[in-house]
Amino acid sequence: MASINVFGSPTSTEVARVLACLFEKNVEFQLIRVDGFKGAHRKKDYLKQQSTGQALTYEEGKTTLVDSRAICRHVSKKFAEQGNKDLLGIGTLERASIEQWLQTEENSFNVPSSNLVFHLAVSPDMRDKHDDAVIEDSKNKLLSVLEFYERRLEETSFLAGDNFTLADLSHLPNAQCIMNTDYASMFMSKKKVREWWEKISSRPSWRRVVAMQKVSMPVAN
Amino acid sequence: MASINVFGSPTSTEVARVLACLFEKNVEFQLIRVDGFKGAHRKKDYLKQQSTGQALTYEEGKTTLVDSRAICRHVSKKFAEQGNKDLLGIGTLERASIEQWLQTEENSFNVPSSNLVFHLAVSPDMRDKHDDAVIEDSKNKLLSVLEFYERRLEETSFLAGDNFTLADLSHLPNAQCIMNTDYASMFMSKKKVREWWEKISSRPSWRRVVAMQKVSMPVAN
Repeated sequence: MASINVFGSPTSTEVARVLACLFEKNVEFQLIRVDGFKGAHRKKDYLKQQSTGQALTYEEGKTTLVDSRAICRHVSKKFAEQGNKDLLGIGTLERASIEQWLQTEENSFNVPSSNLVFHLAVSPDMRDKHDDAVIEDSKNKLLSVLEFYERRLEETSFLAGDNFTLADLSHLPNAQCIMNTDYASMFMSKKKVREWWEKISSRPSWRRVVAMQKVSMPVAN
Repeated sequence: MASINVFGSPTSTEVARVLACLFEKNVEFQLIRVDGFKGAHRKKDYLKQQSTGQALTYEEGKTTLVDSRAICRHVSKKFAEQGNKDLLGIGTLERASIEQWLQTEENSFNVPSSNLVFHLAVSPDMRDKHDDAVIEDSKNKLLSVLEFYERRLEETSFLAGDNFTLADLSHLPNAQCIMNTDYASMFMSKKKVREWWEKISSRPSWRRVVAMQKVSMPVAN
């Protein structure tokens, strides 16, 4: 089998999504990354690094993919028989549900949460009115998605049903960024969303990614 | 200033030595590494990976260095005015003492400790008589070096005097490997050596390297 290479830093949300998927599927791969470690005169710039993201490339023989969700779908299909077999579901109906929630994540959750994380990295005195408007708008959009999730999670344990799937996994990187800010309360104030977050973020695959992000952080010491 | 690139994995003892030095000196650099993550069907091979080592390359503009101790000396001189200024000492006498202990590490400590770590990675039923003889010989040599250190450390807090220097730092990678084995008692049974190990291994620079090694480990999960 062609060996798998992932190029990028675990602190990029795109890379983090792919790593979580590879760990869930117990796939053997190599991570090629460039980590910058800065001297004492520099400030922490964790959030900034997260939000601007870094290039992600997935290489498997002659196949090259760069979109994190497309990579996750590919890995889940290709390695259907190993690791977590529920990631992309088994039956047609299950798959359709997972796909629907994956698209909700990409179109409705990803945009406002990425905006929030990006704009929070800009210090308040550097912001102009446009930034404040973007923050306000993103906050409202994210709140409304999370209310929608709250209602869904009153019916099922995970977004697409009773199992942890790609639909849940795909939320982890941005949600983790939000959790490191004052906006964590947007998740934590909703009972079902909070329980869901606690379940998905405590998966060993994700704990591994978070540990990798921590040591990749440029820390002034 | 030319940017600094280090190529290699933190699980290599050579790379770990250089990282500890760069952190002590608060030097800004980039680490370019390839980490292999293995699927569930593979065993842990941490020790093996450690002992065989991986290529280390230090790049600073047109300068390229590959020997970890030479890199540490270079970094300590080049960045004399920042971070830990004691690493290579200040006066001529201090420098001479540090250099002497650095050479003791390289010639008397490094060889038996590397041998031990390497041979411990070979499972007992794969070993032949030659391996057992090497282990026995290395153990004796290491014990005798540590007894020499014990006497030295009755007089001074660190090997080259009252400060933590490159001479101490240089011991960290191999000593850490030994600490992960049954041979830890060789250090822990000697009062002064144990106290010295506790001081040098708890430095924030080294804690960072150890954290980086942990997440680089291929873990079967």
